Amino acid sequence: LKNKFFSVLPIGGVDEIGSNMTLIRTAHEDIVIDCGLLFPYEECFDINYLVPDFGLLDETRVKNIVITHGHEDHIGGLSQLLAKLPNIKLWVTPFTHHLVRKKLEEFRIDFNFQIYQSGQDISFQQLDITPVHVNHSIPETNGLVIRTKDRQWGALYISDFKVDLKSKHEDPMDLQLIKNKLSECSQTAYFIDSTNVIFDGKTTSENELLPDLEGLINRQEDRVFITLFASNVHRMNAICLMAKRAGRKIVVMGRSLWNYMEAARESGHSDLTLEDFHTPDQAKGQTGKMLIFLSGCQGDFLSALRRFSFGEDGTFKPQPGDLVIFSSKVIPGNEKKIFRIYNKLTQFGAEIITAYDHLIHASGHPGKEDLKILIDSFLPTYYFPIHGESYMLKKHQEFLFQSYPTVKTLVIHNYDEVILGESSIKIEHHESKEPILIHGKNLIIEKTQISQRRKMATQGSVFITYQKQNKLIEISLLGLPLMAQEHLDQLKKRLLNQIENDLHHRESNYFKDQLKISTRQFFNHLLGYKPVTEVHLF
Amino acid sequence: LKNKFFSVLPIGGVDEIGSNMTLIRTAHEDIVIDCGLLFPYEECFDINYLVPDFGLLDETRVKNIVITHGHEDHIGGLSQLLAKLPNIKLWVTPFTHHLVRKKLEEFRIDFNFQIYQSGQDISFQQLDITPVHVNHSIPETNGLVIRTKDRQWGALYISDFKVDLKSKHEDPMDLQLIKNKLSECSQTAYFIDSTNVIFDGKTTSENELLPDLEGLINRQEDRVFITLFASNVHRMNAICLMAKRAGRKIVVMGRSLWNYMEAARESGHSDLTLEDFHTPDQAKGQTGKMLIFLSGCQGDFLSALRRFSFGEDGTFKPQPGDLVIFSSKVIPGNEKKIFRIYNKLTQFGAEIITAYDHLIHASGHPGKEDLKILIDSFLPTYYFPIHGESYMLKKHQEFLFQSYPTVKTLVIHNYDEVILGESSIKIEHHESKEPILIHGKNLIIEKTQISQRRKMATQGSVFITYQKQNKLIEISLLGLPLMAQEHLDQLKKRLLNQIENDLHHRESNYFKDQLKISTRQFFNHLLGYKPVTEVHLF
Repeated sequence: LKNKFFSVLPIGGVDEIGSNMTLIRTAHEDIVIDCGLLFPYEECFDINYLVPDFGLLDETRVKNIVITHGHEDHIGGLSQLLAKLPNIKLWVTPFTHHLVRKKLEEFRIDFNFQIYQSGQDISFQQLDITPVHVNHSIPETNGLVIRTKDRQWGALYISDFKVDLKSKHEDPMDLQLIKNKLSECSQTAYFIDSTNVIFDGKTTSENELLPDLEGLINRQEDRVFITLFASNVHRMNAICLMAKRAGRKIVVMGRSLWNYMEAARESGHSDLTLEDFHTPDQAKGQTGKMLIFLSGCQGDFLSALRRFSFGEDGTFKPQPGDLVIFSSKVIPGNEKKIFRIYNKLTQFGAEIITAYDHLIHASGHPGKEDLKILIDSFLPTYYFPIHGESYMLKKHQEFLFQSYPTVKTLVIHNYDEVILGESSIKIEHHESKEPILIHGKNLIIEKTQISQRRKMATQGSVFITYQKQNKLIEISLLGLPLMAQEHLDQLKKRLLNQIENDLHHRESNYFKDQLKISTRQFFNHLLGYKPVTEVHLF
Repeated sequence: LKNKFFSVLPIGGVDEIGSNMTLIRTAHEDIVIDCGLLFPYEECFDINYLVPDFGLLDETRVKNIVITHGHEDHIGGLSQLLAKLPNIKLWVTPFTHHLVRKKLEEFRIDFNFQIYQSGQDISFQQLDITPVHVNHSIPETNGLVIRTKDRQWGALYISDFKVDLKSKHEDPMDLQLIKNKLSECSQTAYFIDSTNVIFDGKTTSENELLPDLEGLINRQEDRVFITLFASNVHRMNAICLMAKRAGRKIVVMGRSLWNYMEAARESGHSDLTLEDFHTPDQAKGQTGKMLIFLSGCQGDFLSALRRFSFGEDGTFKPQPGDLVIFSSKVIPGNEKKIFRIYNKLTQFGAEIITAYDHLIHASGHPGKEDLKILIDSFLPTYYFPIHGESYMLKKHQEFLFQSYPTVKTLVIHNYDEVILGESSIKIEHHESKEPILIHGKNLIIEKTQISQRRKMATQGSVFITYQKQNKLIEISLLGLPLMAQEHLDQLKKRLLNQIENDLHHRESNYFKDQLKISTRQFFNHLLGYKPVTEVHLF
């Protein structure tokens, strides 16, 4: 890269939703934007997630990471990153600072945090980066205007946003700042959120939800339960104020809600005090009107919502007369879990209200009309859809072709390096790396091992020990129908016969394999599938 | 039950979508309606499904089963049922007869099929059952009017339907027949489909899809691929005619599509001949305009759609210029699988059209306006929502309360017996039974075994053999991170130490348990979770 140019190289977040991470490269240094996690596509059994491969991060060149906002798909990979680059400067806003510090507590060391404010330039060796306030679904979300010192090139990078012109909670997105900063540049490129692009209209304002939410909270039921995305601090604040006006005691169930409210209070996003909130223990046995927040609107296994809905919570059990409000949407893949919660609550006699019944949820991502407001306020030379699955990137491009045919819109993929060069754009492809699968104590687990887990899950497993000397066979069955147990003597007899024939003129590995093959054939005949089989030979 | 009364007892299909099965009980005999399967709620690893427990079926009393239509959630449990009651009379329409025969091929015996026609009474000892033609998403779907011989009671049982007044493919639902038959009865009860009740409007007619479908098929692309629910024979017929008009060769990929088309031809639902269809082999290497049907619109692992989309099919690979039409909806739970297919196709450069872009899919279930048409045509005394999850049953009841307050609407559950008695309704609850989980060769697998599979899937497993005499330990790790392998010597050493201390003064079961506990602790410390551990001791 020549001195005055730079490039944008997404490592995660393109062709997928999640594990957002982008490298900004210059001649002398590289700057990272975000480092998030992704829940894997294929069923990988509960607790695993993916982080981008860090192969392209050269520690002699990477000294800075700029975090755009505090969602897990933007900060969830930081533990792994900091294990590799413990001295990196972490650029965060005050609210995000609280969230990231909490996340990194396990390390018990101080990282190099740099607090930034929207609108104030961060100056790097060859670039100026201006964080720009945008609306989203968590406080202090920023787009980034990235400009060369000579203002030859300016890029706007916004992975998550919507345009909320009516919000009571925060200012509208700072379109004027984007225009001012980019107007100074000769050539410009946009890198923009595709999450909600198949929606033709304008994304609902947080403000438009208030009447329906307040109507529900003012209803007569003694107990109103409400679940929402824990990071939507503005909405939680608004609901708390409604609850106070309605004379409802506020109870908060779920660690994530407490964490976000703490971060909000500490960074000035909430006028509520600790006294306004009650733990379930404090609320136990009390009567009167309550508003109870439940974490886990996606039905997560260990969440307060699920525990409550299944009647497994020690303080609150669903009962007729309860109102349960879902101020949230169903993230694709979670439908069955969430429908199951609707059903459980209904079986207990509670009433359910979802965003299908009332206007009580708004997306944090731009529909086509939001995109138009952004593009109409400043028209770039180039345009790259990011933050979306392949299908959405394509739809995003088609929308640009149709509505802004003069803009040069290109679909890129992870590991495509967009070089903002002398007179035009060049795209250079790097060998793409699979993201890394994490399980348990932040440890990497290999795909082959996940595939072995899948085999045991779908076909069970068989452990066999054979002791030559005494001709003893022990067999354990795991995850096989109990009737298979009744056929074990038959299997033992078959294996012993085989041993008689094979044992003396074969080496032990061959012999092990033969036992394995026989066992798997035996069960295939009996059950219709072949369990994972492991043999120990003495 | 007194001589002239009867009862309706759902065994499956209420509080859930799937495994539909209902028992109609009279003083002298019981009649079964349908016997379907359900895909389990919790992830049970790919290939398992649930059928209702047959505990309440008394083989001295059950001599007849009436099948309403040929969907898997109504016929998928027949193999299990016929293994228990091989002599039962199977009442089916001609089209459903073909489907059920195909399904039971494995038995290699002739079952006692009785062919019925819509509108023609089936006379049982104490009841007359009139199958009534209804619209749905598969040919020859019937509601059942069930009446006592003295016409004291009449019940209408429709688990699946919509009102399609505009269909070109078949007659509209026979509302007049329902009215005629029930008008003869002193008291009446409805048992009605809840699947689509949260939809306020009128379900789209199959006929309304034709313009958009034809518009797409008439486009210029050489290759148009289309996927749809294989059982929607009417739609497939219509698309075939459009393809012929457009001069497209018709290719069919996927066994299920071939099966349904065969059943359709054999029972007079298709004027197309075998010559109109081409196998992928016949199409191989040919050029010119084609329409290629792909089975597996839900993204099933082994389907033609998935194989094609992943570029794994031998005949067709996606390429720029291909048009792929999804004339289907996404069944909740399949979102990720299907979005992945959209993404793969996009990556290959194909264009995708879904029901989000054009009017190319219609539900087979009633919205509120469909229900109104039914109820307005004949108002029953009692009303019971069925065929839906708890949440939907409740919404269905609320709709009745609001729109038809004079109808007595009650929510029932599986194993609630609704007794249509002398002067009123009585509901008697039977102990409910969990449905039976099936895996592999139609074999039952226990919940405990599924839970063991889940443990191996989420935490891997360890298999240890210890031979006392020679103090030899062998350890196998399955589904654990490869780094765990490097710590095996350490584990062996620890276990051998423990053996030294414990071996001589302990019995072997206690000793086995100690080894197990140590191993699980060791891995918990290393990985953060405890693998399933099995020990063999010699």
